[in-house]
Amino acid sequence: MTIKDRRSIRHYSADVVSEELLNSIIDEAQRASNTGNMQTYSVIITRDEAQKKLLAPAHFNQPMVTSAPIVLTICADFHRFSRWCEERCAIPGFDNIQSFVGASIDAMLLAQNIATIAEREGLGICFLGTTTYNALQIIETLHLPRLVMPLTTITMGYPASMPEQPDRIPVSGIIHNETYREYTSAEINALYEQKEARDDSKKFIEENNKETLAQVFTDVRYPKSASDFFSVEFIKALRRQGFIAEEQ
Amino acid sequence: MTIKDRRSIRHYSADVVSEELLNSIIDEAQRASNTGNMQTYSVIITRDEAQKKLLAPAHFNQPMVTSAPIVLTICADFHRFSRWCEERCAIPGFDNIQSFVGASIDAMLLAQNIATIAEREGLGICFLGTTTYNALQIIETLHLPRLVMPLTTITMGYPASMPEQPDRIPVSGIIHNETYREYTSAEINALYEQKEARDDSKKFIEENNKETLAQVFTDVRYPKSASDFFSVEFIKALRRQGFIAEEQ
Repeated sequence: MTIKDRRSIRHYSADVVSEELLNSIIDEAQRASNTGNMQTYSVIITRDEAQKKLLAPAHFNQPMVTSAPIVLTICADFHRFSRWCEERCAIPGFDNIQSFVGASIDAMLLAQNIATIAEREGLGICFLGTTTYNALQIIETLHLPRLVMPLTTITMGYPASMPEQPDRIPVSGIIHNETYREYTSAEINALYEQKEARDDSKKFIEENNKETLAQVFTDVRYPKSASDFFSVEFIKALRRQGFIAEEQ
Repeated sequence: MTIKDRRSIRHYSADVVSEELLNSIIDEAQRASNTGNMQTYSVIITRDEAQKKLLAPAHFNQPMVTSAPIVLTICADFHRFSRWCEERCAIPGFDNIQSFVGASIDAMLLAQNIATIAEREGLGICFLGTTTYNALQIIETLHLPRLVMPLTTITMGYPASMPEQPDRIPVSGIIHNETYREYTSAEINALYEQKEARDDSKKFIEENNKETLAQVFTDVRYPKSASDFFSVEFIKALRRQGFIAEEQ
């Protein structure tokens, strides 16, 4: 798949993804830009069935976690770099939010490169946004040490089927020239009218007994109570991994 | 440039990057995966010379900010989506860290897609890690409203020269099978020996009057005092933009 015609793949064939191919994908993905060439990221590869079953609950048992041949957990990682510093009479100072954010950005640039290269090689992938919800569980399951935070998960395998490509808002909606312009009601209507007119959108509204598609997002899919709860959990995970000091 | 032979470009020719090309790059980049298809990101395009001069100090006056034809500030953005919710009788609840982290991940997947597509089209890019250091300044300069956080900046233009490709550690160093393995001293040595043997590394050590390359990172380039300072600034910016509640 090219970037233009790509779509997330949630159903995989039984074909094996070779270790050579996977290593070459991650190796090439490392060419992504990164801060100070510190490469503050790690990729945990899950192929073992028992490990997949341990990981699945953290992802709310989305079936891809156990059905995909490969599950990659992409982490911000200042542990390895700090280990090197300690071996070289240097005192690392990366136990803070700025280091976490920098490592996270670099880890996500790597993640998108892994996705693009895998798709070019005929594989299909799906990102799991659940990784930041249940980071503590994933930390336990993957034995992640201090200064390593899981951020996103990619399930990967050869596509068993090719779904429809999802909609996007017009590109004019995400671009701002020189400064951020406030959106007028008319512009909001224009940006979202295609999405709202889709049959699947209408079905979502009906199934959830809501008045608008936006209410499906705010009341059902991403309610404030859940986001607030998982925010507290995420901060706990950052503290546990040493990116926020104990007393803060 | 392909992903494999890419390198960051810091010197640009005078050739104009057309608005059509830039729009088509960002449009195609929107095919990146994103959470719930909410597309919680924005791209602020800076072409105006006066605006570049205003932005430059936030990036410690790195010359690319004023010399590149185009500067893109990539933001996590829950403002637009919240505006849509408000227009549709839905109460948005994205004023929390979990929403910030989710939007950040999606914004960075978009950012890497923009980089990959731009390079495929013959352009050169450089990411600026300074964006998260001085987020407050950038928020002011670009008039970013509540729930919009700048995360990274891409300078872009046609390459004026093609620098050497930087080193990377062996891919085995960033991969972990099934669970995170602790690095032994021998493995750390093996991962970093090539980097440490480079002429430019030796020059860095000498110029900075240090004993090891790691000390150049911990004492000169990324000292704990600076990371701690910029962590406090970043939290201030998150609070100002509404991702952390005032009382927290």
